[in-house]
Amino acid sequence: MNHFVSIQLDKKSKTPLYKQLGDALYNFIQKGVLKPNTKLPTIRTLASQLKINNVTVVNAYKYLENKGVVYAQIGSGTYVSPLPSEIISPPISRKIDTDIQLKQITITKNTINFASISPTTNLFPVEDFKEVFNQVLERDKGDAFSYQESQGYYGLRESIVDYLKNYGINTKSDNIQIISGAQQGIDILSKALLQFGDILFVEQPTYHGAIAVFQNRGARIVEIPLESDGINIPLLEDYLKIYNPKFIYMMSYYQNPTGYSYSLNKKRKLLDLAEKYNTYIIEDDYLSDLNYSKEPNIPLKALDHRNRVIYIKSFSKILMPGLRLGFLVAPKPLLNHILSAKHTTDISTSSFIQRVFDLYLRKELWKNHINKICNIYNKRYDCFIHNINKYLDNYVTYTKPNGGLSLWLKLIPSISTKTLCDKLLSKDVIISPGSLFSTSQNFSSFIRLSFAAVDEKEIEKGLKIIKDVIEKMIDNSPSSTTPFL
Amino acid sequence: MNHFVSIQLDKKSKTPLYKQLGDALYNFIQKGVLKPNTKLPTIRTLASQLKINNVTVVNAYKYLENKGVVYAQIGSGTYVSPLPSEIISPPISRKIDTDIQLKQITITKNTINFASISPTTNLFPVEDFKEVFNQVLERDKGDAFSYQESQGYYGLRESIVDYLKNYGINTKSDNIQIISGAQQGIDILSKALLQFGDILFVEQPTYHGAIAVFQNRGARIVEIPLESDGINIPLLEDYLKIYNPKFIYMMSYYQNPTGYSYSLNKKRKLLDLAEKYNTYIIEDDYLSDLNYSKEPNIPLKALDHRNRVIYIKSFSKILMPGLRLGFLVAPKPLLNHILSAKHTTDISTSSFIQRVFDLYLRKELWKNHINKICNIYNKRYDCFIHNINKYLDNYVTYTKPNGGLSLWLKLIPSISTKTLCDKLLSKDVIISPGSLFSTSQNFSSFIRLSFAAVDEKEIEKGLKIIKDVIEKMIDNSPSSTTPFL
Repeated sequence: MNHFVSIQLDKKSKTPLYKQLGDALYNFIQKGVLKPNTKLPTIRTLASQLKINNVTVVNAYKYLENKGVVYAQIGSGTYVSPLPSEIISPPISRKIDTDIQLKQITITKNTINFASISPTTNLFPVEDFKEVFNQVLERDKGDAFSYQESQGYYGLRESIVDYLKNYGINTKSDNIQIISGAQQGIDILSKALLQFGDILFVEQPTYHGAIAVFQNRGARIVEIPLESDGINIPLLEDYLKIYNPKFIYMMSYYQNPTGYSYSLNKKRKLLDLAEKYNTYIIEDDYLSDLNYSKEPNIPLKALDHRNRVIYIKSFSKILMPGLRLGFLVAPKPLLNHILSAKHTTDISTSSFIQRVFDLYLRKELWKNHINKICNIYNKRYDCFIHNINKYLDNYVTYTKPNGGLSLWLKLIPSISTKTLCDKLLSKDVIISPGSLFSTSQNFSSFIRLSFAAVDEKEIEKGLKIIKDVIEKMIDNSPSSTTPFL
Repeated sequence: MNHFVSIQLDKKSKTPLYKQLGDALYNFIQKGVLKPNTKLPTIRTLASQLKINNVTVVNAYKYLENKGVVYAQIGSGTYVSPLPSEIISPPISRKIDTDIQLKQITITKNTINFASISPTTNLFPVEDFKEVFNQVLERDKGDAFSYQESQGYYGLRESIVDYLKNYGINTKSDNIQIISGAQQGIDILSKALLQFGDILFVEQPTYHGAIAVFQNRGARIVEIPLESDGINIPLLEDYLKIYNPKFIYMMSYYQNPTGYSYSLNKKRKLLDLAEKYNTYIIEDDYLSDLNYSKEPNIPLKALDHRNRVIYIKSFSKILMPGLRLGFLVAPKPLLNHILSAKHTTDISTSSFIQRVFDLYLRKELWKNHINKICNIYNKRYDCFIHNINKYLDNYVTYTKPNGGLSLWLKLIPSISTKTLCDKLLSKDVIISPGSLFSTSQNFSSFIRLSFAAVDEKEIEKGLKIIKDVIEKMIDNSPSSTTPFL
């Protein structure tokens, strides 16, 4: 308690006393002097210790509550929020290093690219699309290039309704918003649902491109640990009691970067909590089609009987990223906000691409394509697992995802991820460091390796290079003479 | 001065005194009790009148300064800002009615659409594009559908450098950012340049789609009156002395909605002021190609020797909106911010469309097309002017734009724009009310009529309907028996 008497307040300052006091306490919380869930002194105690008015303390606590670093429990007192305070400080200043994605890394045909989660161009269904392109041009002529209504081409929204039946999702074309890819979906939802300073929850770790959007929007991001069967439910509920997030951003299957999928049980609990605490869930489905197990996948949206889920579907990973097309399915009360945000963002998605994609869905050309790439990637997955076990068994641990395009590997403590990435880059092998996927430092010993853009030969060759580099790092490390003492 | 003694402050309230005082003064300013440029009482006078501490008054004035409603002149005192205070109050709450654009107005083939500024589909160069589509598919195959670097396809940026020479703009491919249409350009620039609460300047009136973006971003918009030869320069400088706008958003030619173009003199002055006050100018060039005069057009960017101009070029109006393609040319210090905002917004613009457009530019197919539509629209323009003079001479005044796709008409005071729009809608004629283009009420007697989507027959028919409706409104107005007394 003696921290508090050390607080110096200047009654002559232009800064109001309550703010001086609040800032001093904020400082204690930031520095960890006051730990999460610590009870703050009662109003009366602190006021008398510092010889100030009770009202000043009340205002200081209110000020901290508005900042999100303390919470009040009625009849009990005021407590330090259970989150690391840096997570909820203004996010604008704490960008994660998405520059890694933008950095001009020279990729040649010899580069082994374990960082990309986009399929290589030889897997694209170009011939199918070429046919469909020309059919649309023939059929629609100039109409194919007019402004499209902002919600999206009606025909396409209709064919998406049919397409979604394959995934157990029943909806109407009115509930669908066409978007230019999932990234735009996240951006538009941020504009529609978040004001400056609003709180949202994400899984920790998560997709850096989503974090970048939320940060740019000036929102406050609360990261909740992800476990191998889904988000940590008790922690989620603890945080829902304190904060009022506008939404929870998550991926049900083959989460990026962990590859983890939700159990049915956790999906149900998540939906219950969203209903109980009156919030929404953004389900980002970028990859659930790549399922290598025998169990069918059930998107969260398929279980969403209380309309709490906004479902984003991207075709960048399972068809071709250059199409820049995807869609949202959203609960009715949100649709107008979403439509208005889409209009403000780019008026509408390319009319031509929408018409082409409509015809592609109607002809059911996607079914063959998905089967084909699922088989190809299943083989690569098996090859990947086999070679990880062969080469990296001593140096990494991981959970098998049984789907998707990546593995999330925890390195043994003696390996610096940053050094490993740099050394591999000089050998023309690219990997993604775990630090890319969270604003906290918790993932500095993880790497994400993806097999989307490498064939079976490159997988074996690349993993062997990684093994050699790791072994050399261990040999050269200062403690290398005594590692097993 | 007796307003001030009426202020009641409650020393027991939880709200600090300075804030109570500030809010009371803010209220006076909002209600117009304190007019723009009024000097506020000195600190000492107000403190003694209200029997409060000097510091409380200092803090109250500072609080108002932060809100942007007063400004301090060193050695002189504190003054009410010269802007209508509602313009600079938090913008989120004061959306202009962009819903009009989203409203589902049923457009049939009998509708006469004077509201659209997009060309009709029969003017689109579909055959040219069909040829280029297939050439790109043949040439690039799967590569045409991969992720493109966020800045844009290098080949396209190179051909844009050549294209821009036709407009007197000399730049390098490094300074170009590809965007999915001008609307996205405005959105991305907002993300790159504006934080919550930042100030920017726009012409008054201006494009509602830009206002919607700035408002959604939580920025504060200062509207500066536009005159028929460009922005009001002395007023602009007055405001630049007080505010620190991140940028000034403007259109050099055939401004939307007024059709006004900048004189060379005003363009030079604008550039000088941007340099003097260290701000940027966003030049939105959506239409400068449609020039019906003999004088060539000189974009502001072509005069920008001190790198103050961010140039946005859209092809939606002069080629086909369904392409969703445009570009920015930006000063070097801004490029990284812009690139990062683009990446966050949608990763990249469709690789396929970029490659197609590159080939379209390289083949110089655009030159013929622009000539063709310029001739067509010149004829419609002449027809439009002729019929406006024939039918609406008694009811409207306007300035001839000599280019572009719209006229900005001021109605005689006895006509209600809203009633006129509604009555015309019931006769299947659509027009744009002036209120759409500003957050202030100054333009409620204006309408924008565009001839982009109407042919010469429809122009004559539509304008005659407008005349008939106006005449009927005048006949039915309560004062109709005495209009000429």
